[in-house]
This record gives sequence, C-alpha cells and structure tokens, in this order.
Amino acid sequence: MNTSATKITASSILLFETKILMALIKDLRSASALMDWDRETYMPLGGAEDRADQLATLDTLAHEYLTNEKAHELVKRIENEILNCDPSEKPLFAVFLEDFEKATKLSSDLVGRTSKAQALAQISWRKAREENNFKLFSEDLQKIIDLKIEAAECYGYSENRYDALLDLFEPDVKASELRNVFNDLRKETIGILSQVKASHKEIDESCLFQPYEESKQMEFAKFIAAQMGFDFNNGRLDLTTHPFCTSFSVRDVRLTTRIYPNDIRSCLMGVIHEAGHGLYEQGFAKKYARTFVADGASFGIHESQSLFWEKIIAGSEEFWHWAFPHLQKAFPEQTQQVTPRRFYEALNKIQPSFIRTEADELTYNLHIILRFEIEDDLINQRIKVSDIPEIWNAKMKESLGIVPAGDAEGCLQDVHWSFGGFGYFPSYTLGKLYSAMMWTQMQKEIPTVKSKIANGEFEPIKLWLGEKVHQYGRAEKPIQLIKRITDRDLDANDFINGVKAKVQNIYG
Amino acid sequence: MNTSATKITASSILLFETKILMALIKDLRSASALMDWDRETYMPLGGAEDRADQLATLDTLAHEYLTNEKAHELVKRIENEILNCDPSEKPLFAVFLEDFEKATKLSSDLVGRTSKAQALAQISWRKAREENNFKLFSEDLQKIIDLKIEAAECYGYSENRYDALLDLFEPDVKASELRNVFNDLRKETIGILSQVKASHKEIDESCLFQPYEESKQMEFAKFIAAQMGFDFNNGRLDLTTHPFCTSFSVRDVRLTTRIYPNDIRSCLMGVIHEAGHGLYEQGFAKKYARTFVADGASFGIHESQSLFWEKIIAGSEEFWHWAFPHLQKAFPEQTQQVTPRRFYEALNKIQPSFIRTEADELTYNLHIILRFEIEDDLINQRIKVSDIPEIWNAKMKESLGIVPAGDAEGCLQDVHWSFGGFGYFPSYTLGKLYSAMMWTQMQKEIPTVKSKIANGEFEPIKLWLGEKVHQYGRAEKPIQLIKRITDRDLDANDFINGVKAKVQNIYG
Repeated sequence: MNTSATKITASSILLFETKILMALIKDLRSASALMDWDRETYMPLGGAEDRADQLATLDTLAHEYLTNEKAHELVKRIENEILNCDPSEKPLFAVFLEDFEKATKLSSDLVGRTSKAQALAQISWRKAREENNFKLFSEDLQKIIDLKIEAAECYGYSENRYDALLDLFEPDVKASELRNVFNDLRKETIGILSQVKASHKEIDESCLFQPYEESKQMEFAKFIAAQMGFDFNNGRLDLTTHPFCTSFSVRDVRLTTRIYPNDIRSCLMGVIHEAGHGLYEQGFAKKYARTFVADGASFGIHESQSLFWEKIIAGSEEFWHWAFPHLQKAFPEQTQQVTPRRFYEALNKIQPSFIRTEADELTYNLHIILRFEIEDDLINQRIKVSDIPEIWNAKMKESLGIVPAGDAEGCLQDVHWSFGGFGYFPSYTLGKLYSAMMWTQMQKEIPTVKSKIANGEFEPIKLWLGEKVHQYGRAEKPIQLIKRITDRDLDANDFINGVKAKVQNIYG
Repeated sequence: MNTSATKITASSILLFETKILMALIKDLRSASALMDWDRETYMPLGGAEDRADQLATLDTLAHEYLTNEKAHELVKRIENEILNCDPSEKPLFAVFLEDFEKATKLSSDLVGRTSKAQALAQISWRKAREENNFKLFSEDLQKIIDLKIEAAECYGYSENRYDALLDLFEPDVKASELRNVFNDLRKETIGILSQVKASHKEIDESCLFQPYEESKQMEFAKFIAAQMGFDFNNGRLDLTTHPFCTSFSVRDVRLTTRIYPNDIRSCLMGVIHEAGHGLYEQGFAKKYARTFVADGASFGIHESQSLFWEKIIAGSEEFWHWAFPHLQKAFPEQTQQVTPRRFYEALNKIQPSFIRTEADELTYNLHIILRFEIEDDLINQRIKVSDIPEIWNAKMKESLGIVPAGDAEGCLQDVHWSFGGFGYFPSYTLGKLYSAMMWTQMQKEIPTVKSKIANGEFEPIKLWLGEKVHQYGRAEKPIQLIKRITDRDLDANDFINGVKAKVQNIYG
C-alpha cells in the first residue's frame, strides 16, 4: 500500500468535511447578506426591527457553527494535516483556520461588550456630529478604544498593538511598513499639490453639475458597467442611500448606487467603482464556491479593483475619448458645450477639501494618513481622546493647508470609529497604491492597453485582472499577491508617478 | 408558598425556552422565504443553482432545530405542562407540538425518497403536459402516490387514509365531512348552471380585454390594495411570473402580481386576491411575533381571506359602484363605452371551461370536487393511475358537460400532484365556503356593510376580519374558528345562496 496515497485520502476526507462546514456557514452568511441587501433596497420601513432580529439570528448561527465542538475538532485535524496536504487544498484549510482563530480569540463577553459600546457610540457620534461638538462623543470613543486595545491584546501582535487591528482589514501588513510608505506618499503629494497651486489653472467642473435625468443616468451607468464586463446575467444594479457591492455567490453579485438629479459624477463614478468590486466578486474561481476563499484577499485589494476602474480607467483621457460620444448620445443637451477633454479635466480636478469622501484622487490620501497616524497613536496610548480635535486640525493645516471650522467637518466626519473600525482607513489608500502597481504591470504586459481603452475594448483588462487577481480570492495574502503580479513589494511610486503624469497633462 | 404560582413560573420558563427556539426556527424560515421571494422577483438568472443550495441549507437547519435533542426535551416538558398552563400560553405550546410531530413522524429516509421522486415527477409531468400524453407521467405519479400512502401511514388516521394528507393543509377536516358538503355543493352548482344556460344571456367580457397600460394597471391595483387597508409601510408589491403573497414578519409582507397588457382582470383581481392574503399576514397579534402561531390557521382559511376580497367584495355590484369612477379616471379611453354594471357582469360571467385556474366562481368548485374524489380514490387504492384520464373525462362530462380534447387540458393541467400536494385542492373550495359563511355573519353584525362597500369604506370590513380571523393566526383550528365566528359548522349553504343571488341578479 502506498503511504502517500493514504495521506491524500485522509486529507481529502478532511477537506470534504471542512468544505461541508464552510458551505453551511457561507450559506448562512449569504442569507444574512441578502437580508442586508434587501433592507437597503426594497424592505418596507416597518420591517426594520424584525430584520435586525433575523440578522442577529443568522450571524449568531454562523458564528456558532464556526466555533463549535465540530469546528474545534476539524481545526485540530487540519493543523496536523496542513503541512502534508496537496498545495491546491492548502488555501481552503488556511482560510478556515484563519477565520476560526479570529472568531475564537475574542471571548463572547468581549464581543458582547464591544457590540453594546458600538451601538451606543453610533448614537452619540451622530448627535455629536449634528451638534458639531466632539465632547459629546469622546467618552464613548474612549470606551471603544479601550475595547479595541483589549481585542488587540487578545489577537496578539509582534511589533505594534495597532498591527493586530490592521490585520483584520489588511492581513500581514504592518504599521511600520505603512508609516514608511505613507511618509513618501505625503511628501510627494504635498509637492504635487504645490505644483497644482502654482499653475493657477482653474478647472471648470460645471459640466458635471447640471440637471441629468435620473433614469437616463441609471441607463448610462449600466451601459458602462456592462462594457466593463460586469455580467448582468449574474448580477444586478439597484438604488440605495449609500452605494455598495455585495454578493451571494459568483453568479449573483449585487451593485447599488445613488442618483443625484444635478450631478452625473456621483451615480456614474459610483457605479463604475462598485462594478469594479463586482467584477472581483464575479471572478472567484468556481472551485472556491461556497468556501471562505471566495472573498476578497483584503479590504485594500478589494478597493484596488474598484479604484482601478474608477480612477485609472474611467479617470483617464483615453476612456473619455471612447465614452464621451456615448455620453453625448444619452445627454445631448448637457454635453453640447463640453469636450471630452473638459469632461476629463472636471473629473480630475485637484483641490484640498475638508471631507474625505469628497476629496480628489491626490489629496484623498492625506486624509487617510492623518487618520492612520491618529489611530496608531490612540491604540498605543500615545495621545488622549480629548486631544483629537486639536491634533486633527493641526495635521489638516500641515498637510492640506486648511483648517476645518468645526468638528463636524473635522474629526467627527467619519462613521468608522463609532462602529469600532480601527485599522480600516489605510485600506482605502492601499487600494490606490495596489491599483497603481497593477496598472504599471498591466502596461508592461499589454503594451497597447491605452489604445484599447480609447477604443472601448475592456475585455483584455477584465481578463488580466481576472487571471492575476480575481480568481484567487483569499487564496493569497495581499503581500504575496502583489509580489506575484509585480515582482515588487508595496510602494507609492507608481501611484505618485501616475498622478504626476496626470497633473502634468492637466495643469501643465 | 403558593403551588399555583410555582406552576406558573415553571410553565413561563418553559414558554420562554420554547419561544427562543421558535424564534430561531422562524428566523431561518423568514430568511428562506426572503430567498424565495428574491428568486421570484429580482434574482439574476445565473443565481438559480446556488440559491437552491442556500435554500436547502436554511430549510435543513430549520428542520434540524425543530427535531434535535433540545426540541425533544422541550416537547417532553411541554407534554407534562400543557394541561396546566395558562390558556393564553396554550396555543404557543400546541403549535410547537404539532409542527414537531409533523417534522418527526416521517423518517429522513422517506423524506429523502419523496423529495427525489417529486423532483423527477415534476420533470416528467412537464414533459407529459407538453406532449399531451398522460402515460409519460403515470409511472412517476404512481411512485408519488405510493410514497404519499407510506407517509399517510406514518402520520396516522382514524377513518380514511386520505385524512392524514388533508390534515397537512386543513387540520382536523375529514374526507367524510367534505364528501357530504361537496355533494350538496355539486348538486346545487349543477342546478344553478342549468339556470344560467336556460337564461340564454350572453355576457360581453370585451371590456376586460383591451390594451391597458402596464404601469397604470400596477398603479390602479396598488390604489385598490391600499384602499382595502393593505399597509404599504409594512409591505410591498412586485412583479413575478405567478402571483403570490409571502411575509417575513407582520411588518414585512410582500405581494406579487403579473400584468398582461391586454387584460386588466389578471393584475387587478390578482392583487386584490393577494392583498387579502396580505391583510391576514399583517394582522397576526403582536404577541405571536417570531412564533409558529404567526401563520394562517390553514390553507383553506388563508384562501378564505383572499377570496373574501376578490370574490365577495370586489366581485360585488356595490364595489364597482364605488371603484368604477376610479377606474375611469385611470383608463378613460377603455371605459368610455362601459358602465359599472357591465364591468361587474363581465367579471362574474359563468361558463364551463377546462382549466381550473381560469374557471368562474361557480364552476371552479366542480373542478375541485373532481380532483378531491380522484385523490381520495387513489390514496385508498380504489382506482388505478392508468385509469385517471378516463375517469377525469367522465367526471368532466358529468359535472361540467364538457370533455377535454387531451390530457394537457385535462388531468395534466395542474402542477400539484407532481410536487406531491395530495390533499391540497380541497382548500380552494373550503376557502370559498368559509368566506361565504363569514360574509353572512358580517352582514348580520354590520347591517350596513353593503352600503359601506358602495362608498368605498373598507375599514370596518378589515377590522372585522382582523378581530374575528387575522389576530388568531394558528391559535385556533379552522373548525373552531368558523364555529366561534358563525356559531355553525361548515356547510355550502351560504356560498350557494350567494351565488344564486348573484346569478339571479345577472342572468335573471
């Protein structure tokens, strides 16, 4: 009898059992995701309270099945088997172990205290923001920070307590690395920003902010998403207050958007952004269906896919060379006096502003770096909660050259801290850096890619991203994924060079 | 220490535990219902296969939680406690016991064999119907009948094996009682039918079948549903291939309809029908939320609520006295040459036909009685499957005076047998009889109800049904419910008298 064959069988049985458990949990999560999607899209108002109960039941069940005796037993067997298993099976085991550990490292007491504190903090944050008064939020925020510190100690870390929280959003990425990359990025960004100012060029954005009929905006955005390769046989697009992308399988991916009647940018760029996420969700390899691998490698990698399409493709002059005639057909009146070039410039206008979500491609990162530094200092107890407004404003002054008039447009603007999302913000900028690195590589491998964009040929781009990124899902960590694709480690160079070129093109 | 107080505490604890388990199962069922609703309304085509897996997971989990060790333990304690418990708690325990028993009486082997046979039978039924050839279905149908006989033996019965299957749809109703009621009903129906024929009056239905703009049909149907009292803050209306009503809580009830561009009846009467179901689902007492009591008392009682609104209210001359001017406003062109009386007559035209779902109010029951008799004979092995077409056609000839040209418009027309729904058909006619008995009682208690209808005042009707029927959910069996409301046992008299009066009015 062949020993190796015996081993394969043992690991195959184990894989089979692990897959069955993952499928059960994944189906519960899909049901929960559908309940969420429905709540945001079609649920009647009256359904909110019962829906919260139903979601709690599904989420609790999913957590129970991931942490019960059977799961513990599987984990022990996987730990014995994982070094000997077939390489193709390894990711399936690895993500199961990872999620099991995340789910079991926090005591249910800590989870309970945290979810209660977050529920209360969301209320006080809302009130504080409305009243433009950080003090109304500071006590609850302190509690959340204490709980996050407690959680970080449970998760464990080697260098920096904040790494334990970062890891939830960006596995294996360290604060020390981020600090280096972000320092370069800030320095270069401030340099570019002063160039923009020195040019004294005023970009006219008015073409974006005209009356655009809502149903036609939706139709046009859907057309663009379909051209990108988003498959509407395996997905749809609906309206919500805040745009998002969710999925219940690779064959059922849901995008949402909002429409402002006097602003084409919000709906259009929103749909392109979400369709970028959607292509990722539609692209996981079939073999990972109903497993934990069928998910984004990280928040940052997911964001890289949406930003790739929104900023790199749809933010390019080539794209509007192709897309503008289609826009003209849809909106002949609004585009009569506009050229593709003017539309492209309007979309790429650079101007320091207070609100992160409204910031341009370049200054956006300064908002993120500021938050990253404050979070790192808070979690390491180097600064006090009560000092946040002052620190915030000083950092805004230093990097963006502007100071918010109050906390509402300053340190109270984001919901993240109130729901305990410490470690989340860096993903946004990482997404930009990853996408720029992928774009550099794509241009090497598809030298004609820019002319393809100018012709509206997006299939090679979708295929490239599918082959290099999408199919893997969580089978690789972000660091490995970027290394495999670009043969380099994370840096800000490609992003900076890209923005420099664009600024040169637009501002001269 | 007071013994009775101690007993109350023991039963309260038991109730608390039972309610927690029911809430868990109910939430899983709600998630499953939402996944079903989504599949019929918005799910992209590609999602079908994964959705089937997800539904199977949720349904299996719900079944497991209803039949696991904890449930067994609760059932034992409930059986000890139920005679001593507070009367208000009894329905909660009773429905739990009932569902537990239904879920545990069939072996999982039988359940598995049945669901496989049904999946195959649905394929062969579809093929047989397409090819107009019963023989292609007969073998699979025989298997299903054998499995239903096996199931009936597991469930148990006292008089008639068919009662065990009837009980799944209409608890405690016996075939022997139905046979008596149905014999009266058939005799009287045939009498009325010959009267209609003798009148030689031809009703012109053409006003129903004109081009009616689809979005306006939807708007008008929504308006009528809202007037009936269906609460759109706690519900919605969407489009599907086959109309249905489902709910995820009393505050989230979903109706669906279909629209034919050249037929106003289908959408309008469909919405009124489903809104009747919807009012029932919106009307369960709050104390039954997230328990098994928050459901229809039976298929027949549920159908009585939809038919009450569709046939008794919206099929009345008084209703169209009020509604017709609204219809005229919505469709001025289509109604120019039409009077309320003509519209009312068109909706109530009586004419024997082959297809059950297209039958008028009167002859519909003859279709049901025929199916009931054949099912009873099949389950009791008094007739052979191969004889069904011949028996079907003979019964059609005898009762309706017409013979279908082939099996497709004869014994192959309904999907029910292919999914094992033996015992289901009688509910449709029971719904008619129940609603007629309720209507008689309502007229006694609200003597001005007809003039209220003529004024579009539906609030008293909704309140009456809410108080007498809706709030109870499954807390009462149909037999008790009808007895409490009307102080009578089930009979066909009210239905027959109602139709007689209508026929007299229309056909003279």
